[in-house]
Parts: sequence; C-alpha cells; structure tokens
Amino acid sequence: MRIKATVAYNGYRYCGWQVQENGVSIQATIDKALGKITKTPSEIFASGRTDAGVHAYGQVFHFDTEINMSEINWENALNSLLPEDIRIQKIEFVADDFHARYSVKRKRYCYFLNQGKAEPFHYQTVYQYGRTLDIEKMEEVAQVFLGEHDFSTFSATKKEIVPNQVKDIHEIIFRQEENLLSIEFIGTGFLRYMVRMLVGTLIQVGEGKLTKEEVKEMLEAKDREVRTVTAPACGLTLVEVEYK
Amino acid sequence: MRIKATVAYNGYRYCGWQVQENGVSIQATIDKALGKITKTPSEIFASGRTDAGVHAYGQVFHFDTEINMSEINWENALNSLLPEDIRIQKIEFVADDFHARYSVKRKRYCYFLNQGKAEPFHYQTVYQYGRTLDIEKMEEVAQVFLGEHDFSTFSATKKEIVPNQVKDIHEIIFRQEENLLSIEFIGTGFLRYMVRMLVGTLIQVGEGKLTKEEVKEMLEAKDREVRTVTAPACGLTLVEVEYK
Repeated sequence: MRIKATVAYNGYRYCGWQVQENGVSIQATIDKALGKITKTPSEIFASGRTDAGVHAYGQVFHFDTEINMSEINWENALNSLLPEDIRIQKIEFVADDFHARYSVKRKRYCYFLNQGKAEPFHYQTVYQYGRTLDIEKMEEVAQVFLGEHDFSTFSATKKEIVPNQVKDIHEIIFRQEENLLSIEFIGTGFLRYMVRMLVGTLIQVGEGKLTKEEVKEMLEAKDREVRTVTAPACGLTLVEVEYK
Repeated sequence: MRIKATVAYNGYRYCGWQVQENGVSIQATIDKALGKITKTPSEIFASGRTDAGVHAYGQVFHFDTEINMSEINWENALNSLLPEDIRIQKIEFVADDFHARYSVKRKRYCYFLNQGKAEPFHYQTVYQYGRTLDIEKMEEVAQVFLGEHDFSTFSATKKEIVPNQVKDIHEIIFRQEENLLSIEFIGTGFLRYMVRMLVGTLIQVGEGKLTKEEVKEMLEAKDREVRTVTAPACGLTLVEVEYK
C-alpha cells in the first residue's frame, strides 16, 4: 500500500531534508520514527529537498508499507514518535502510481521578512531584516521573473550537473501586515537556492541598489557566475505541493 | 545615571530570569553583555523573575552606570552583544528613585494555547493543547478570580516564606482567533506559578472536569495542598509591566 504524508516542520535545528554526514536531517528523523512502526528500514520519497534551516507547512513524501492501519492511526503513531518541530499534518492512502516527486504539478514557497525591530519570537522562521523596503518597486521588478525563463543566474547548481535550468514561475504575491512582509512564489518547480536568490535580489531592489533593467540583464545572462545575494534560509517555507 | 530597559525574550532555551547553578539564565546573559560595555560587573534589577521556559514581550529591568551614551546607542550596543532570542526593545533614562521592582503598578501576563492540531512553528511559545475547550464556561468561571483574594491555593510558595499571598486581579480577558486562544491576566502582582495554575484550573473547567462551585471552594481553601494543575511554561508570556 502506498501512503502519501503531508508534513510541517520548523527546519531551524536541522541540516535540511536530506540525510547528511554531519547534522540531523528531517528525513532521517522521519525514517527513524517510521522504522519504529514498521520494524524494517523504510524508504521515503519527498517532493524535493529543502535546505538547512528552511521550513515547510506542507512538504509531501510517500512510502510503501504492508502494515494495515487507518489514516488517522498512522498520523497519530508517527506524531507520537516525532519531535515537536516535525508534525505530520495528513496521511492519505494513494494509488501505486502516485509519486511524491514525479507527480508534482506546482509548488508554493513563501519568504517571510520583518522590516521592524528584531523580535525574539520568530527569529527561527522570519528573517529579521530590520529596515523598511520599497515594496512597490520590488513588486514591479518581480514581474521580470514571471513566466518561463532559464534561471541559471539564480541557481546554486552548475549546468554540468543540471543542464536544463528552465523553470516557470506562475505567480509572485506580495503581502504586508504591519512590518511583516511575505513574498510567495508559485511555480512548477524551483532550482536549488533559487527562491532565496530571487528574494535576495528583490531586497536589493527594495534598498535602491538594483534597477529593473539591471535585474533583467542578470536574468538574461543565464550565468551562475553573475553575483547575486542569497537571502537567509530561516525566512523560507515550502507552503504547499500541488499534485496532478 | 539610572537606566530603565525593556526587553523581549523567547525563554525556551533558558532556565528562567534568575541566575541558576545549572542552565543559562536570561539575567546572566544580559549581565554578560552589559559587562562587555561597562567593563565592570553590573547589577541589574528586574520587575520580577520569570520561570524556566516563560517568555516576555516587555520585561523591565534597571541598572546604574556612569557611561555616557545616548538611549539608542545603549539599545544598539546591548542588542549587538545579545543572542537572537533576547532583544532590548527600549532604553530610557529615568530618575534615581525609579526601581524596576518596587515601582511596579500593574503587570500583564498572557497565556497562549492552540486548540487545533499541534504545529511545529510555535511550540516554544504556544501550548500545543490540541483539543477544543468550552471557552464560554472558562470565561464565566474566571470571574471567580477577579478582585482581591488570598491566592495560596494557586501558589508554589509556602506561607512560611511568603506570608501574604493576597493579590488583586483587575481583569481576565479571553481572545480567540481561529484555534489560538489567549487568556490575559492584569493585576498588581502574581505569585510564583500563579498564572499557570489559574490557567491549568481554567483548562479543567473547559474540559468539563471542574465546576464554578468547585473552583470557588478551591480558592476559598487558601491552601497550596489543594491539588491544582499547572499549565506548561511555554504558553506564558509577561506582556507588559506598568509603572507608577
């Protein structure tokens, strides 16, 4: 039986989704909990990795099992074995051709930034930026990224490893509530560090350090050697993974 | 010169305000930062202690110094030496007769509780309770605590140590936003564990385990041997200290 799990996590304490030599990963922590239930090593497949310090409301992974348990019992069993900063949100029985990674339709990422005075309650999940940005200008320049582009300039991965760096961004939505700014990115997929590099670039726009023309040139260069600023991991959350 | 400082902290990592033998305290962390500026050991006086794991938006402390620096420079200097989970909010020069503890007029505490599914983003600052409470009943029974009472039943301190356990609660305010419940307590002062014991008792009311009559009897017993439930520290925040 194939199981689809939706999981929320605060990535602050973790070295990212993927198992690493040093540091504790989200995946290893879930593997361990699952292994206690199944008594056998389990293989879990996520929609994609998240980097060290990045969070998720709705990361999705799947695994196969022969254990016969209801969806709610799976949810409770896993949550009873997981730490407070990793919480299963939903368990669904799915068809055998569902694949957490290959069946993805769209992903939604959200970046959170505090323009006000640094506060100690959300430093793990909100970038404590501490200054006022020109949001209107940022929104205007963000249009440059919409649609299908080769995002090699905003990628941490060399073309030799990932030759096709074309991605399609459907929407970029700015929201502001008092000092908290959030920028949501909706697209078919994202390259490693891509959202953080786009946000870093937009912050420079909001600081008056980059113009729309310059950002266009950066994108059109399709070259990861172009100097870009990467916004801190703590502000980034994988909000939702949509499936076909 | 006497300096009044308002500080916000996430108490999750700390053993409380007061210096302890084991664990890092908020006070010791601030002392250390202050010592780096003044180059001499400083004595800081808080409005009162907060327990291990308890937070503050607006804890207040004072100290005396001969260093000549503007208020904003003091704030920036201290924040540059403090960790992300302790942030000075305000520095004010005050008269020499101001005392962070003895000049207190009222204090406001707020308890945060999540009635919905446990979520991993606020587990440090919101009690992840996970069930629905009868808030109306809780609000009704909370009236019992209003006004001046001997709160010995809801105190962690023996009468031999603190003989006068009479406190005056001015207001108890319930707020609900989706699943998040907050209960605010405003009063002249609070005994050790008092707010958490009142909240623990109100939760039992909301679960249908205690009636208004039973809570009245508990209060009137004025006896810390009466069995009470203490709500977890993580949900409690010292919101504001008001001065004469």
